[in-house]
Amino acid sequence: MKATRTTNKKTNYQKDSIVLHKKHGGKLEISSRVRVTNKEELSLAYSPGVAGPCLEIRKKPDKYRTLTSAGTTVAIISDGSAVLGLGNIGAKASMPVMEGKAVLMKEFAGLNSLPIVLDSQDTDEIVQTIKMIAPSFAAINLEDISAPRCFEIEERLTKELSIPVFHDDQHGTAVVVLAGLINALKVTGRKKASEVRIVINGAGAAGVAITNLLSLYGFEQIVVCDSKGIISGKRTDLNYTKKALVKITNKQNMHGELIDALNDSDVLIGVSQANLLGAEEIAVMRENPIVFGLANPNPEVDPERAADYGVAVLATGRSDYPNQINNVLVFPGIFKGAFSSKATQITDDMKLAAAKALAKMVAKPTARKIVPGPFEKGVVDVVAKAVAKYAKKK
Amino acid sequence: MKATRTTNKKTNYQKDSIVLHKKHGGKLEISSRVRVTNKEELSLAYSPGVAGPCLEIRKKPDKYRTLTSAGTTVAIISDGSAVLGLGNIGAKASMPVMEGKAVLMKEFAGLNSLPIVLDSQDTDEIVQTIKMIAPSFAAINLEDISAPRCFEIEERLTKELSIPVFHDDQHGTAVVVLAGLINALKVTGRKKASEVRIVINGAGAAGVAITNLLSLYGFEQIVVCDSKGIISGKRTDLNYTKKALVKITNKQNMHGELIDALNDSDVLIGVSQANLLGAEEIAVMRENPIVFGLANPNPEVDPERAADYGVAVLATGRSDYPNQINNVLVFPGIFKGAFSSKATQITDDMKLAAAKALAKMVAKPTARKIVPGPFEKGVVDVVAKAVAKYAKKK
Repeated sequence: MKATRTTNKKTNYQKDSIVLHKKHGGKLEISSRVRVTNKEELSLAYSPGVAGPCLEIRKKPDKYRTLTSAGTTVAIISDGSAVLGLGNIGAKASMPVMEGKAVLMKEFAGLNSLPIVLDSQDTDEIVQTIKMIAPSFAAINLEDISAPRCFEIEERLTKELSIPVFHDDQHGTAVVVLAGLINALKVTGRKKASEVRIVINGAGAAGVAITNLLSLYGFEQIVVCDSKGIISGKRTDLNYTKKALVKITNKQNMHGELIDALNDSDVLIGVSQANLLGAEEIAVMRENPIVFGLANPNPEVDPERAADYGVAVLATGRSDYPNQINNVLVFPGIFKGAFSSKATQITDDMKLAAAKALAKMVAKPTARKIVPGPFEKGVVDVVAKAVAKYAKKK
Repeated sequence: MKATRTTNKKTNYQKDSIVLHKKHGGKLEISSRVRVTNKEELSLAYSPGVAGPCLEIRKKPDKYRTLTSAGTTVAIISDGSAVLGLGNIGAKASMPVMEGKAVLMKEFAGLNSLPIVLDSQDTDEIVQTIKMIAPSFAAINLEDISAPRCFEIEERLTKELSIPVFHDDQHGTAVVVLAGLINALKVTGRKKASEVRIVINGAGAAGVAITNLLSLYGFEQIVVCDSKGIISGKRTDLNYTKKALVKITNKQNMHGELIDALNDSDVLIGVSQANLLGAEEIAVMRENPIVFGLANPNPEVDPERAADYGVAVLATGRSDYPNQINNVLVFPGIFKGAFSSKATQITDDMKLAAAKALAKMVAKPTARKIVPGPFEKGVVDVVAKAVAKYAKKK
């Protein structure tokens, strides 16, 4: 496979993006769905008529969904601790990303969403604050919160709130990866999930969620590496989350470096900042290896050279190469499906259904086409429908 | 004066309002100011270009105002404890009011605003939560929070945050009342503020704020009553806020009932739910009395009979009678002026300036016209300009 760029335009995106943001004064517009141009209209949208919807919701709380826009609005919440490739840039500096996410939620799924950035990176404070503002929303999309705090925050909120909570950096990524992997295995003629040996490099938010979802799907041979090497039961430096990984990965109890894990493996999924792999590392993998190099902006394997190294299928996080692993394929449909089915949680079954539906959208997968493109028609509705089918209500 | 209704249409506002809310699925629409229809546009609005504005804000925090919409967005925050005439209906049931407020903020001042309702009525939890989400906003509009908690919440937030905090039920009301009173005194030929005897019935959010603002303006003879009668230094049941009122009111140290306070007074400002006053109570007031009956939906004095009782100028909270004391005359201009001047607080000077400017808009006040109507052109900009002139920055 030759992974040539799909576009060659060398725009200075960051600079142009500043100009765009300044021109519009940020990206979100909050406007009215009703007219208020005279006393009569004012009396219906506001006092005294508004007492009607208020009392109706007071009597029948479920009316919140239909009588307020809040009842179908997603909160996009971050503490700015793990933003894009930028790291811990704090609340305010992360806002353009959150507004961007809200833009995508509207453009792709037609849903209202509100960005909220928090003035704390303390787990308890974050959980408490989100619980306090939760009545204002129909669902919570956690965004760019660093590991391992993100795991506990999501777990506690899922338990304590009765609206869907979804950490996109974890599960959005995991769902697209699984969808892409299902098709990459087809392309390379691998048939049994149980026989496929997978290495996941990176045990942060995405790495952990990918590991869990692939395991649930039926992959039995997964080895996860972090910056210290292979994660195994012999390690004494593992946190709670990494200890949990030991139970479902590395059944041979290997230890060593990433290169040891790669030896005789079929798939590498890179979700780390480091480790640019070259010809030597790819060479120890099985024939026709599959590589998902998701580090941004520089994938773990140079996309220009991957084919020369023998990589059969390459996926990256970039929009200028084929096979972009892009969460926008998932989160709009996840929330749309959750709302249409009145789900109160986003369960594993819903995520698996989303991944399978997404994979199926590519009728004839090839090395350059294992996932739909973000602007392909029908993606959101296919995911939403799959999710709604497995919706869980408390 | 004959206070005939300005409209006679007997719409069932509450019922019609439910239909309107259901039809539109609530009142707010959150949409994108930028296009995202292809990879190029996606790269500027979101990854990778969005890193540009993020890093720019990280370097120069003041750029938040121009590069994000959050930087010019007002949070409208309530705990649902004192909603309209409905009382403590809780967070979710109060949302239609908050969405309505956001609608007015956009329609009148052109500003983005976001409704947030809180799952707690505890002062510390409310203050803590608002501080945590404050980076997401350019200003805080507190709404429908019951007294006396509202005083402490506003005071603490004003001290601890560096963005404007404004409790509209207090100060929005106080500013319109002062504006209306300035003109009502002109209409009835009262010239010296220091000679005017004012009774304020109600010592909740609005009553306290009105008392403070009128006192700052120069009224020296104010007596405040609560449900137990005249507030005086002899009372042993006063909370912190009411004790503070004793210092600036009731200099003769009167005690007794509302009727005792009304005796020989010029002005009654009613901001309570109770006390429908009749001919006998009005009769003890000085000639040509001014009455602001702001209880909703039933004013303290029956508007159909006020003229018969001898009331010279009547103002109410209702849109179907003349002289509506409506906060919408104030809060849009307050925030617009604060933003244009980069104010970090809404000070007393700014509120006084707003009231004076609002009063001045009525070139020739009459008994039926002491304040501008909510849809009169120029109101927002007149208030904004006055506020901006006295803007305070930390």
